[in-house]
Amino acid sequence: MTSPRHETALIVGAGHGLSASLVRLLSREGLHVAVAARNTGKLAALSSETGAHTFACDAVDPDQVKRLFDDVEKRIGVPDVVIYNASGRTRGPLVDLVPSEVERALAVSAFGGFLVAQQAARRMLTKGYGAILFTGASASVKGYAQSAPFAMGKFALRGLAQSMARELAPQGIHVAHFVIDGGIRSPGATDTLDKPDSMLDPDAIAENYLHVLRQPRNTWTWEIELRPWVERF
Amino acid sequence: MTSPRHETALIVGAGHGLSASLVRLLSREGLHVAVAARNTGKLAALSSETGAHTFACDAVDPDQVKRLFDDVEKRIGVPDVVIYNASGRTRGPLVDLVPSEVERALAVSAFGGFLVAQQAARRMLTKGYGAILFTGASASVKGYAQSAPFAMGKFALRGLAQSMARELAPQGIHVAHFVIDGGIRSPGATDTLDKPDSMLDPDAIAENYLHVLRQPRNTWTWEIELRPWVERF
Amino acid sequence: MTSPRHETALIVGAGHGLSASLVRLLSREGLHVAVAARNTGKLAALSSETGAHTFACDAVDPDQVKRLFDDVEKRIGVPDVVIYNASGRTRGPLVDLVPSEVERALAVSAFGGFLVAQQAARRMLTKGYGAILFTGASASVKGYAQSAPFAMGKFALRGLAQSMARELAPQGIHVAHFVIDGGIRSPGATDTLDKPDSMLDPDAIAENYLHVLRQPRNTWTWEIELRPWVERF
Amino acid sequence: MTSPRHETALIVGAGHGLSASLVRLLSREGLHVAVAARNTGKLAALSSETGAHTFACDAVDPDQVKRLFDDVEKRIGVPDVVIYNASGRTRGPLVDLVPSEVERALAVSAFGGFLVAQQAARRMLTKGYGAILFTGASASVKGYAQSAPFAMGKFALRGLAQSMARELAPQGIHVAHFVIDGGIRSPGATDTLDKPDSMLDPDAIAENYLHVLRQPRNTWTWEIELRPWVERF
Repeated sequence: MTSPRHETALIVGAGHGLSASLVRLLSREGLHVAVAARNTGKLAALSSETGAHTFACDAVDPDQVKRLFDDVEKRIGVPDVVIYNASGRTRGPLVDLVPSEVERALAVSAFGGFLVAQQAARRMLTKGYGAILFTGASASVKGYAQSAPFAMGKFALRGLAQSMARELAPQGIHVAHFVIDGGIRSPGATDTLDKPDSMLDPDAIAENYLHVLRQPRNTWTWEIELRPWVERF
Repeated sequence: MTSPRHETALIVGAGHGLSASLVRLLSREGLHVAVAARNTGKLAALSSETGAHTFACDAVDPDQVKRLFDDVEKRIGVPDVVIYNASGRTRGPLVDLVPSEVERALAVSAFGGFLVAQQAARRMLTKGYGAILFTGASASVKGYAQSAPFAMGKFALRGLAQSMARELAPQGIHVAHFVIDGGIRSPGATDTLDKPDSMLDPDAIAENYLHVLRQPRNTWTWEIELRPWVERF
Repeated sequence: MTSPRHETALIVGAGHGLSASLVRLLSREGLHVAVAARNTGKLAALSSETGAHTFACDAVDPDQVKRLFDDVEKRIGVPDVVIYNASGRTRGPLVDLVPSEVERALAVSAFGGFLVAQQAARRMLTKGYGAILFTGASASVKGYAQSAPFAMGKFALRGLAQSMARELAPQGIHVAHFVIDGGIRSPGATDTLDKPDSMLDPDAIAENYLHVLRQPRNTWTWEIELRPWVERF
Repeated sequence: MTSPRHETALIVGAGHGLSASLVRLLSREGLHVAVAARNTGKLAALSSETGAHTFACDAVDPDQVKRLFDDVEKRIGVPDVVIYNASGRTRGPLVDLVPSEVERALAVSAFGGFLVAQQAARRMLTKGYGAILFTGASASVKGYAQSAPFAMGKFALRGLAQSMARELAPQGIHVAHFVIDGGIRSPGATDTLDKPDSMLDPDAIAENYLHVLRQPRNTWTWEIELRPWVERF
C-alpha cells in the first residue's frame, strides 16, 4: 500500500528558486540528491549547503543527457525520482520572434523533457518503480498573447507527461505534472506590504512535489494546480 | 506564511468510505469534527469511534442546511473546514431515465453543494479564513454514456467550485475540487490478487484533502486529480 | 454520405435574439419550425413574419414538456431538429444569492435541457436520425466570480450534451454544443463606432447551427466555440 | 459585417487526403491556390486537375519557408488564407523512441507551424485581414500511450494556435484550430459494409474549413471538433 521508498533524486534545470527548494527539501528528507544545469557555477553554494551532487548538462543534447544519467548512477545510484524543471522562453509579438530562439525555447521546454524522461524511464522500468515529475506553468493550459514559444513548449511538455502517465503508470512509474500558475517569489525577496503572499513560495511548491511522491500507487495524482490566493485565473 | 490553524470541520454526505476516512483523519489531527447525513443511523459507530458529532440533514433543503450550520456552530463552533461529499446518481439509457430521479440526483450533487457552500462562506468571510472542499469524480470532467444525470450534477458542482474559487480565494477562503477518477475501495475489502492496488484507498484520498488544507495561501491548489496506477484515463 | 434531410425543427427558449435568428433561418431553409417559450406573447410578431408555430411551455415541468412534443408532433410532425436555447441566471456575491432563485436558474439551464432532450431522443431513435443542439456560453467552460448559478447550469448542460453525444451519436442522433463566448447583439442595435463588430451577431451564430446540421455523419462536430474578434478569452 | 473576400490560399503539407480536398474545394470556390510539400512529385496530378501552383518546401527550415512565401507572393499574390496541415510522428514505447526522430516529429508538427504562421502573419497584418488555420488531431487534447512525440507536437501546435488567436484576432487575423478526432478515409477507399461512415471524409472536413473562413469577424470560431458518428471519445 505504501509507495516504494525513494532514496535518490535527480533534478534537471536550475533557473529559479524551485530547484533549490526541491534540493533542500529532498536532502532534508534523507534522499541522495543530484542536480544538473547547463552552468553548474551557480549551483556551488547550494551544493555546499546541502551536499547535493552537481552535474553540467545541456538537456537538449541526447548524448549529454545519456552521460548525465550514467554519471549520476555512478555517484548516487539510479535516481528513484527525476524532476524536469527546465524551460525556455522568448517573448514578443509573433512576427518579431527570432526562429532560432523559438527553436531553442521549444527544445529546452519540451525535447529536453523527453530526453530526460526517456533515460529515467529506462532505468525505472528495470526496477519496477520510480517517479518522474514535470514542472508546468500557466502557459501549459493557456496560450497567452505575445508568448507563443512558451505556450508551445509547455503545452508539449504536458502532452508528453500525459502520454507517459497513460503508458507508464500501469508499469509502476508515477508520472505527474504540476501547473504552477503564478510568479514564483525570488529567494530572499519579501512580500510587498499591500499584497502579502501574492507570489508562489518555492518551498511551499516543493512540499507539493514531496506530497505527490509519497502517494501510494492506488491513489496517484497525475496533475495538480498551484497558485497564490490572489492570482487571477 | 502558514495557513490558519483549522480547529473545526464539517463533512456533509456519508455515502461511502471517504467520509469515514476524513472523519477519522481530521479527528486524529485534533480537529473537532461534525458529520451530517440524511440518515444518521449509519454514522453511530463512526461517532463512537472518533467522537465526531453527527447531524441529520437533507442537503437539498435550504432550511435544514441553515439549521445544520446553526447546530454545528452551537456544538463545536463555526467550522473552519467544510467538505461537500454528497452526490446523487441514476443511470441508464437517457430515454429511460425518470425525470423526478434526475431532478433529485442533480439537486443532491449540485444544489446541495451550493446550499452548504453558501452557509459555510457566510461564516468564513466573517473570520477571513476557512476552506471549502468539493468531492468530484471522473464524471466531473467527462460525460459518460448512460450516465447523463451524474455528469450533469458533477459538472455543475465543478462549475460552482471554480466560480467560488475565483470569487472567494482573494477573500481568504480556500476552495478546492478533487477529481476522484476511479472506484473507491469499500471499507474492509481486500484487493484481488491479480490486480493489487487497483481501487482508490479512502484513507489515501483523505490524506490529499489534509495536504490541501495545510497549504499556505501563497500556494493553493484549486484542483487535483487522483486515480489508481492501473486506471485508464 | 449526406445527412438525412431535416424537415421539421423545434426551438425551445426565446430569451434573446438567437432564437429569432434560428427561426428565420430554418424557415427560410424550408423547414417547418415550432418555437416554444414560457410566454408566447413575445413570439407573435416572429410567428407572423415566419409562419413558425408557437407553443407555451415551461421547460422545467416534465408534463408540459411531454405535452409540447405531443402538440408539436400533431402540428408539424416529429421534429428532426431540436434546439435547447433556454437558460436561467441570477448573479451576485455567493453569500447574497437567494436559494430558490438559484434552484430555478439551475432548473432552467440544465434540467429543462434534459427534459427536452429526452423527449426529442425518444422520437428520433425511432426514426434513426435527428439532431439535438444545445446553446452554451462562456460560463459553460469557465466559472466566473459572482456568477456561480450560471456556471452551475451551463456546466451541467455541457455534461448532459457530452454524455448524450457519447450515447446517442452511434445510434444516429447528432448532439452538438455551442460555446457562445461573448455578448449577443440585441436585434436592431448597431455597433458603436469605436468598436465595430464587437458583439456576436445572432444571424451569424444561427448560420453555425445550420452548418452543423448539414454535416454528414462521418464528420460530426460535438463542440464549437464562437466569439467576436476582439473578445478576450 | 461580412468577412473580407479571400482570393488566395496557401496549403502547407500534403501527407494525406485532406490537403487534396482543400485544394479542390478552395479552387472550386474561385481562390488561387498554392500547395507546398517537401516532395512535389506527388502533387503533380492534383495540380493538373485543379490548376493549383505547387512548391517544394521543408517547413522546418526558416529560409525555405521565407522563400516559399516570397515565391507564392510572386505567383498568386499574398495568401489571404494559410493552412498548416503538416505533422510528424514516430510511435512506440517511450523507452524505444529514437531521439532524432522525436526531434524531427516535434519540428514538423509544431516548429514548422510557427515558421509558416509567422510568415503568414507578417503579410496579413499589413493588409489587416487574413486567416490562418491549423489541423489538429485527437492527440492535440489527449496524450495517448506509446505516442508521446505526436502528443508533444500536436499539443504544441494547439498552444501556438491559441496564443496566436489571443494576439492576432484583435488585429483582424482569424486563427482557428481543428481537432480531427478519428481516422481520415483514404482517397478512393470505400466504407466497409458493417461500419458505414466510420471514417472522416476529407471532403467533408474541408467544408468545415470553408465554413470557418466565411465567418464574419463578429462571430469567429477558434476551435472546432470533428469525428465520425461511431468514434469513441
